[in-house]
Amino acid sequence: MINLGMASLRLYAGLVGYPSGFCARSLRTLSGMTVSQIDEEVAKLLELKVQLGGDEGRHQFTLKTAKGTRDYNPKQMAIREKVFNTIISCFKRHGAENIDTPVFELKETLTGKYGEDSKLIYDLKDQGGELLSLRYDLTVPFARYLAMNKVTNIKRYHIAKVYRRDNPAMTRGRYREFYQCDFDIAGQYDPMIPDAECLKIVHEILSELELGDFRIKVNDRRILDGMFAVCGVPDDKFRTICSTVDKLDKVSWEDVRSEMVKEKGLSEEAADQIGQYVSLQGGMDLAERLLQDAKMSQSKQACAGLTDMKQLFSYLQLFQVTDKVVFDLSLARGLDYYTGVIYEAILTQTGPVPVAAAQNGAGEKAEEGVSVGSVAGGGRYDGLVGMFDPKGRKVPCVGVSIGIERVFSIMEQKAEASAEKVRTTETQVMVASAQKNLLEERLRLTAELWNAGIKAEVMYKKNPKLLSQLQHCEDSGIPLVAILGEQELKDGVVKLRTVHSREEIDVSRDKLVEEIKRRTSDV
Amino acid sequence: MINLGMASLRLYAGLVGYPSGFCARSLRTLSGMTVSQIDEEVAKLLELKVQLGGDEGRHQFTLKTAKGTRDYNPKQMAIREKVFNTIISCFKRHGAENIDTPVFELKETLTGKYGEDSKLIYDLKDQGGELLSLRYDLTVPFARYLAMNKVTNIKRYHIAKVYRRDNPAMTRGRYREFYQCDFDIAGQYDPMIPDAECLKIVHEILSELELGDFRIKVNDRRILDGMFAVCGVPDDKFRTICSTVDKLDKVSWEDVRSEMVKEKGLSEEAADQIGQYVSLQGGMDLAERLLQDAKMSQSKQACAGLTDMKQLFSYLQLFQVTDKVVFDLSLARGLDYYTGVIYEAILTQTGPVPVAAAQNGAGEKAEEGVSVGSVAGGGRYDGLVGMFDPKGRKVPCVGVSIGIERVFSIMEQKAEASAEKVRTTETQVMVASAQKNLLEERLRLTAELWNAGIKAEVMYKKNPKLLSQLQHCEDSGIPLVAILGEQELKDGVVKLRTVHSREEIDVSRDKLVEEIKRRTSDV
Repeated sequence: MINLGMASLRLYAGLVGYPSGFCARSLRTLSGMTVSQIDEEVAKLLELKVQLGGDEGRHQFTLKTAKGTRDYNPKQMAIREKVFNTIISCFKRHGAENIDTPVFELKETLTGKYGEDSKLIYDLKDQGGELLSLRYDLTVPFARYLAMNKVTNIKRYHIAKVYRRDNPAMTRGRYREFYQCDFDIAGQYDPMIPDAECLKIVHEILSELELGDFRIKVNDRRILDGMFAVCGVPDDKFRTICSTVDKLDKVSWEDVRSEMVKEKGLSEEAADQIGQYVSLQGGMDLAERLLQDAKMSQSKQACAGLTDMKQLFSYLQLFQVTDKVVFDLSLARGLDYYTGVIYEAILTQTGPVPVAAAQNGAGEKAEEGVSVGSVAGGGRYDGLVGMFDPKGRKVPCVGVSIGIERVFSIMEQKAEASAEKVRTTETQVMVASAQKNLLEERLRLTAELWNAGIKAEVMYKKNPKLLSQLQHCEDSGIPLVAILGEQELKDGVVKLRTVHSREEIDVSRDKLVEEIKRRTSDV
Repeated sequence: MINLGMASLRLYAGLVGYPSGFCARSLRTLSGMTVSQIDEEVAKLLELKVQLGGDEGRHQFTLKTAKGTRDYNPKQMAIREKVFNTIISCFKRHGAENIDTPVFELKETLTGKYGEDSKLIYDLKDQGGELLSLRYDLTVPFARYLAMNKVTNIKRYHIAKVYRRDNPAMTRGRYREFYQCDFDIAGQYDPMIPDAECLKIVHEILSELELGDFRIKVNDRRILDGMFAVCGVPDDKFRTICSTVDKLDKVSWEDVRSEMVKEKGLSEEAADQIGQYVSLQGGMDLAERLLQDAKMSQSKQACAGLTDMKQLFSYLQLFQVTDKVVFDLSLARGLDYYTGVIYEAILTQTGPVPVAAAQNGAGEKAEEGVSVGSVAGGGRYDGLVGMFDPKGRKVPCVGVSIGIERVFSIMEQKAEASAEKVRTTETQVMVASAQKNLLEERLRLTAELWNAGIKAEVMYKKNPKLLSQLQHCEDSGIPLVAILGEQELKDGVVKLRTVHSREEIDVSRDKLVEEIKRRTSDV
């Protein structure tokens, strides 16, 4: 009954809000509970929450989107479409197929794939039936797809939204719902050829998007693990030390070192040896030097990684992308499933402050001028598909994911800055009238144009003013106006007006479609 | 302290699993807790659950997608892309802007919008924080968007997935995750002009998709309500009788009548009078006749609806779409939010059995040969935005939603049936070699082509056989092969092979890009 006593204390702590240390202790004492008992408890509490009327203190209706999500207005969508077209045409240029998977997966499909990040997964409510979760990325569903359909080789792209219950930081384009643009090559091939193509693709996309200068850091999990081994890191500490190293792009070496030593209990010697390696950057030359390195060369793993790194750079030279690629031993990448080459692309100019910054308080102001950081990342994951295959059959995979939200933030900024305004429609011509009672004539002509494949608009008013019709063209960038009047109808012509020059000419009705197409062929 | 005492009892009940009646009583005693305290409790319990290792009773792993969902393979995606292009270009031809909204909304945003269908909404698990649900359609989020951003007029399209915990019927293309393609016009305009454009759009899209013959049924909520009134249906029974009438496209009048009388307690006389009206179909003439109808003409509402119906048909004549449109008094539409014109498009040929039928048991076999039914629907909803606006300001809206999954099923069928196979990539040329040790030359040439915007593939093998390279072209429909050999390299040429004719010519390297573009300009 001592357990129960503590339990009631725990609950009391919950009610009056005791310091968390206390609750933590009580949590341990509770560990006699089974999962189903916990579910029962949770169900009761949530039932009570519903009775209390949902989120705290909110009685009347709040008009907002869910935390960490946003709508895209037409202007943002126009920018998004441009970015996607650039990315998709690159993927297609490289012969990629396209697949799609559901937005939610069986919960168990995602279980044990993301290490510590698993806590960020959105679960669906158990409404009776399967336990479901929103996808956290596109890579695990892709691996599930390959195993389920017994696909052993494919080059595919997948552009879709993924979901993470993370702390949103809109200024850095970090949302809870965001797009990933993934390109992956699955199959048993000769070393580093597909890996090199992934880097070529990052190079092409970041160049075409004109986001300013960028760098692509490359490393290899085998080199990292080999380095950890020869520096005297115990095997069971590899992953956790790896995630500490991963922070080097955000915090100083001193901070990383002290986390290794103080928090993760690594010896000072080991930490300092790691420190010497992770400061190294270079290209093929560095790989060659490290192959000669007394310590490194002792690790088979490291040597395998370094040999492949040399091979990779030789292919990157053929692809003419070595100018942006750096072999950087401090690159670690968070996720567990990488087994070989890893890479990450960063914009090197401290980019403009993303639009959303404006909406933010002093807390976020500190972010200003800071670069948006990583815009693409990926690597080789040869073990993931095997985790899904009933017989554990492996399908080697390498891929890259473009982190598009940050790119959007920058593009939006540029759009704001630039003089020419973004069109949100592709309308070629507005069908207008100068006099009253011509609605039917306007509708008839508009239908003629639609049927001829012309993008046309007409005002939904019986008798709109000519000025307001012209104003709409100015506002939305419609280049042409087809004006109908009694006289034009008699003469079987239409007055075609060019909005920017205001010049008008009469075009015979049967030549109108042709003329509009001629004048808007560039639109 | 009594509260606390009960609390520990409640917890004890949780631990040893007392009957729920007991827990319910204890739940009331707990109601002193605030929501944040509940969140705290829940968080602790879930943390503990994670420590205990997730969901109970999960034994071995099942490799599948969630019930009612599916992956799209590359072939299906190729078909999907074609369908979307047709639909999007139609929306753009009509001057529509594009918006996007998050896949989940605050639960309360969806509450009270869908009537009985609300039970089909997917809720997210309460992991602490906001209560969220997956969107059920794109219309309610659109209305929320308009109110939230104070948009009073816009013509927009939105293509995205929506979620319904319905009984999947794959044979009829009914899934729990499926696409909607919505086009809506919001704003205060002269009657029936935007409404007519929506019907014109349905006509254009269904014609261009070549799905066979179709019909668009049109009716008006005001006509239905007026009809119910003059037939002696009590006001409080309008909506429920409406949903019974809605079943007329699936079941016989006899069944509908008996549901009205036996289940919904309508008088036999009223039912029979309704029966006479709902059997009526026609065009503008029918609207005119009903305006003269002794009973109908007594209802202001019905007259308003009938007058607008005449107006609508006059515009549809100008748009030349009356051949497919029928004024049908049996059309009711399920959803509550419609306030005026409603419509639904059906394919009139009993379509081919959708592909998925194969996967189905005898239960679904009965469906075979049955038409896929409604492929588009919509109507006017002038009150929905007001439900979100703090001041209740209304924004009149009319829109249409294309039910694309059913269209996919049919297109897939046609693709299966037709001889020519669907290409899943757009690759123009394969860079191949006839001899060994030419990998680097192949990669160099491939990069040249990529940089020139040519869609090119190369095999990820050091020494692939020429035959396997040609075979890949045959399989994936790549029209051209650029073949490198020692001799070609010496002569500074590339052997360009046309796959279908097998004819080969030497092209000088600096003319290659141009030549490939010339030959694939149609691709």
